[in-house]
Amino acid sequence: MDPVTHPRNPAGRPRDPDVDRRIAAAAVELFGRDGWASFSIEAVARRAGVGKASVYLRWKSKEALLAEALTMRLGPISDVDTGTVRGDLVQLVRQLLQQYVGEHGGAVIRLGLEARDIPELAERYDSLARQQILAARAIVHRGIDRGELPASTSVTFLLDALCGGAMNHALTTPPALRAALPETVDDYAERFVDFVLVGVLVDAPAEQ
Amino acid sequence: MDPVTHPRNPAGRPRDPDVDRRIAAAAVELFGRDGWASFSIEAVARRAGVGKASVYLRWKSKEALLAEALTMRLGPISDVDTGTVRGDLVQLVRQLLQQYVGEHGGAVIRLGLEARDIPELAERYDSLARQQILAARAIVHRGIDRGELPASTSVTFLLDALCGGAMNHALTTPPALRAALPETVDDYAERFVDFVLVGVLVDAPAEQ
Repeated sequence: MDPVTHPRNPAGRPRDPDVDRRIAAAAVELFGRDGWASFSIEAVARRAGVGKASVYLRWKSKEALLAEALTMRLGPISDVDTGTVRGDLVQLVRQLLQQYVGEHGGAVIRLGLEARDIPELAERYDSLARQQILAARAIVHRGIDRGELPASTSVTFLLDALCGGAMNHALTTPPALRAALPETVDDYAERFVDFVLVGVLVDAPAEQ
Repeated sequence: MDPVTHPRNPAGRPRDPDVDRRIAAAAVELFGRDGWASFSIEAVARRAGVGKASVYLRWKSKEALLAEALTMRLGPISDVDTGTVRGDLVQLVRQLLQQYVGEHGGAVIRLGLEARDIPELAERYDSLARQQILAARAIVHRGIDRGELPASTSVTFLLDALCGGAMNHALTTPPALRAALPETVDDYAERFVDFVLVGVLVDAPAEQ
């Protein structure tokens, strides 16, 4: 445990994990709603219903608070390896959609837009983003190695279409229909992947 | 001229259009960088190098200022009708990419994320977004009517892939490569549209 960012409180009692969770939830909510430019320890403390001192006791800066809160609340996109390229891509699109339409969707989309301007987050975000892009590219390369996709498949175009399509779907769904999005994620992921794969498979040996 | 939002100044002299432009430019820049939550007349005036009174003389609220500044600075996605569905879609993707990677890219992407939370912008943005979605759908429907695309083409999937792909391309290009993006927009648009269309055209009568 890092003694700078995680001191015990002055009375020597262990930290209350419930307070940690409330502060982290408030931080992710506020960041998702208003973004980094107006993010402050004071606003987070107010929303969490704790004193400012309780936050500073746990985190030395608003950068450190937001970075840890995001790690606590947002699960990573996990590696998938279902055995087929279609199965892997459906899983990838499903996970992206679940992030965008889920409780923390606002924070996820803002991270993509603002992380590079937030000192303590920029590097961590860049390495996370790089890791996710590599994992997605690995899905496509496994598909090529297994002969499911032609060797000429453009990995960049395929992932732009799939990952961008998921984001576009979440962003352009009108407010009135947004509440129903979480239930349609699985169906959309399967049908959208099939739509994009048809073109890639035109030249695939397995499809001829 | 609306007498509430565009009064002459107290001395009766006509407004200086150069000051209008500087204020509008500062407003779009600040919104693009920091977003709505921290947008203020004071910050805009400071950035434009004018007094707060000069801004209030022209716009009665920060909502009205941002709405007009965005209209002044951001061109709309114009309707395209090149005669072929491929030509139209390449133009659409090119225009989207130019917006995202251009001078006001930050403001454009923020608008999609935040417009619905900004009182005077929500309705205007929704109607603009609806109009752009209808124009994009019209491109695809014309292609179906001309027999260029099969009648079974999923308009939603096709536009999610193309419009989302353009956004993903702009957002995921690493900072070091971003300066070169504007020069590659045309090439990317042509090749990406062809990539996505191959799948749609598999069943097209014209392609068999």
